[in-house]
Amino acid sequence: MAQSGPAETPARPPDAVRHRDDSETEFSRILAFSDGVFAIAITLIVLALEVPPGVDDVLDALTDRTDEFFAYAISFAVLAKLWLAHHRFFSEVARFDGTLMALNLVYLFWVALVPFTSELLGNYSGDSAGVIVYAVSMIAVLATFLVQIRYAYAHDLMLPEARQWERRFTGLPNYFPVIVFGVSIPIALLSPAAATYTWLAIFLFAGRIGDTVERRLG
Amino acid sequence: MAQSGPAETPARPPDAVRHRDDSETEFSRILAFSDGVFAIAITLIVLALEVPPGVDDVLDALTDRTDEFFAYAISFAVLAKLWLAHHRFFSEVARFDGTLMALNLVYLFWVALVPFTSELLGNYSGDSAGVIVYAVSMIAVLATFLVQIRYAYAHDLMLPEARQWERRFTGLPNYFPVIVFGVSIPIALLSPAAATYTWLAIFLFAGRIGDTVERRLG
Amino acid sequence: MAQSGPAETPARPPDAVRHRDDSETEFSRILAFSDGVFAIAITLIVLALEVPPGVDDVLDALTDRTDEFFAYAISFAVLAKLWLAHHRFFSEVARFDGTLMALNLVYLFWVALVPFTSELLGNYSGDSAGVIVYAVSMIAVLATFLVQIRYAYAHDLMLPEARQWERRFTGLPNYFPVIVFGVSIPIALLSPAAATYTWLAIFLFAGRIGDTVERRLG
Amino acid sequence: MAQSGPAETPARPPDAVRHRDDSETEFSRILAFSDGVFAIAITLIVLALEVPPGVDDVLDALTDRTDEFFAYAISFAVLAKLWLAHHRFFSEVARFDGTLMALNLVYLFWVALVPFTSELLGNYSGDSAGVIVYAVSMIAVLATFLVQIRYAYAHDLMLPEARQWERRFTGLPNYFPVIVFGVSIPIALLSPAAATYTWLAIFLFAGRIGDTVERRLG
Repeated sequence: MAQSGPAETPARPPDAVRHRDDSETEFSRILAFSDGVFAIAITLIVLALEVPPGVDDVLDALTDRTDEFFAYAISFAVLAKLWLAHHRFFSEVARFDGTLMALNLVYLFWVALVPFTSELLGNYSGDSAGVIVYAVSMIAVLATFLVQIRYAYAHDLMLPEARQWERRFTGLPNYFPVIVFGVSIPIALLSPAAATYTWLAIFLFAGRIGDTVERRLG
Repeated sequence: MAQSGPAETPARPPDAVRHRDDSETEFSRILAFSDGVFAIAITLIVLALEVPPGVDDVLDALTDRTDEFFAYAISFAVLAKLWLAHHRFFSEVARFDGTLMALNLVYLFWVALVPFTSELLGNYSGDSAGVIVYAVSMIAVLATFLVQIRYAYAHDLMLPEARQWERRFTGLPNYFPVIVFGVSIPIALLSPAAATYTWLAIFLFAGRIGDTVERRLG
Repeated sequence: MAQSGPAETPARPPDAVRHRDDSETEFSRILAFSDGVFAIAITLIVLALEVPPGVDDVLDALTDRTDEFFAYAISFAVLAKLWLAHHRFFSEVARFDGTLMALNLVYLFWVALVPFTSELLGNYSGDSAGVIVYAVSMIAVLATFLVQIRYAYAHDLMLPEARQWERRFTGLPNYFPVIVFGVSIPIALLSPAAATYTWLAIFLFAGRIGDTVERRLG
Repeated sequence: MAQSGPAETPARPPDAVRHRDDSETEFSRILAFSDGVFAIAITLIVLALEVPPGVDDVLDALTDRTDEFFAYAISFAVLAKLWLAHHRFFSEVARFDGTLMALNLVYLFWVALVPFTSELLGNYSGDSAGVIVYAVSMIAVLATFLVQIRYAYAHDLMLPEARQWERRFTGLPNYFPVIVFGVSIPIALLSPAAATYTWLAIFLFAGRIGDTVERRLG
């Protein structure tokens, strides 16, 4: 009876912008799905580590796999850092719409690819192609994350108090890891090993650069 | 003491129709389980991408796998779209019963099969059987979703304001992807490649058709 | 300051019996973990389906795998039914303690084993050992679930209104599937195929027996 | 308009210490992500069990895999116990900060490695290296968990009533499993089998020692 007619509440279309407090279950689902993809990707990378049955010297077989352990460790660290950043970002998100959800899915496309690129890096860390594919996938994952953040700020989806942190979330230091991975690509053509060492710069200096910027914005 | 006798509250049987607000934990579990299956399926499809150790030319091995990357990309896009549709649909569901849960599980049966049909497509995109199996699995997943939606509307499980969107959720344009996958089956018998191109029509035109219909219903 | 001394609130030890409403986050975690194991197990069984690259006749290879599809379908149906039962049971649980959590983990041990026994059944459905191992794993999963339910009723962990449904949850018809799988073991020694057909009795008659009992309990 | 200026609420930086009740969604995400990694790791260990197609005597093949079933059972038990401890610990956590989240991720790094070390143990339980790698991974997972707990107590992140349980969570008996796994390493050099038997001491005596200590702290 009340389904149609002028007296009805003007209904919110299913793809309207929603506030996290009004659509708690729906907001949680986005996070639950993202956490699921992260948790699975971060646990699947272990499948690249394998010592087949019937090996004579297990210790020898394990030391032969140093590159694979390095790939596992770096990929776990990268995915853990990405998850922390995702957690931090969404804790400041107040509203969501279909575009933000779609951008998040594009981002998760690259997150879900990490177990593949990580295994490739483990098997071919001495090969330019293996190292470059890994660097490219990292650039894609970082860049799609920044797009998501910029979209949220531009369309007023953030909490009012998060306005203050806009520069921190979208400022230049956030592009530092993208730049390092980008610079490592031509390096990898000359020396794949040298390229992987440049990545360490991200872990060593990214935090410090962030801190310096923060202090100046203080 | 108060367990039996006439003074007791008339107890709701465990399989009664429940409202999402009264049985919040139970409603969440349906979504959490669905999200889990989606997240795992969407992350498992990456396992079809593999470059075995010991390959001479990695770049060559990667370009040889173009079909597998295409299968990964299309399957990720399909599962992401399905998840968005599932998210949108359940955000308008007010009540649930055993039948809706069972229909949802039948739907998830086909969702969970996608990693298999996707790998098959990646390995045999030039083979009629590989392409047809993929098309059939897509028809099954889309059709079981529409059954679920129709059931929810027919048994008054939707929010009152969702009545307005019934045509949008169950109207003809929703059958468009089913029709395209159906039409691609006889095409695949003649040319598997041509069949996969017809699928692109869904991504290119499904949105536009939906928009046109919406404007007319506006 | 207030951390110790006689004026302090008598603290609840971390392993006390807790009510789902007082410890909402903790209760949800049990369900989330269970749902995670279910969702992963139900999605992993698809990994047993595989057509290796380089097969000449894909259609032929697929029809050769009829037994594996049957194993996938039956395992999905079994896990889906188990999840529905788990969902229904925990919707009536009011309190939880360490023992209930431990019993739930023992139950999940057998749930997580299903992808293995299911793959074995798919590969060796014509072999007595493959069929018997599957039947035994089903008996274990069903029996540990009944233990969990009986414990919850015996230790007053259920909602008051769930008292009425005790017979429904723990009555004889619930043992019907256990008995069928038990009977199928000696049958499997003579004919593995005949044993798998007896399992169908569960799907065909379990519901009807339950309905009959319910009507009599009125 | 109100985004900047002196009248604005002094904003909480995104990485401030937060209370679980004020940041419910964010607190839940940490647990959901942890539960996801646990659920996946505990379900992935089943992948180490495998009877390839085409075996002549299935029963024989299964009995040949006794070591792998033992590895599956012990790893499931270990991960289940770890999850219970994680559940118990976080049920007493009131506040969280970036460091606690990072420590939790370091802990999950070792949890996610268990499917690998478990498979290695299953394949090489008679080899010193296989047993030692497993013992080392167990020490790492247990030690990083204790670091997390100690940090939470030291930085006042626990609920006020959890103060009483500090000794129970961080006291000497919690180091008992670490010590047993440590002692088993030199034993494994002499006899890998003897080393695995010493692990049983943890399951048999850890509970009793805990009970004794509790009674004395009474």
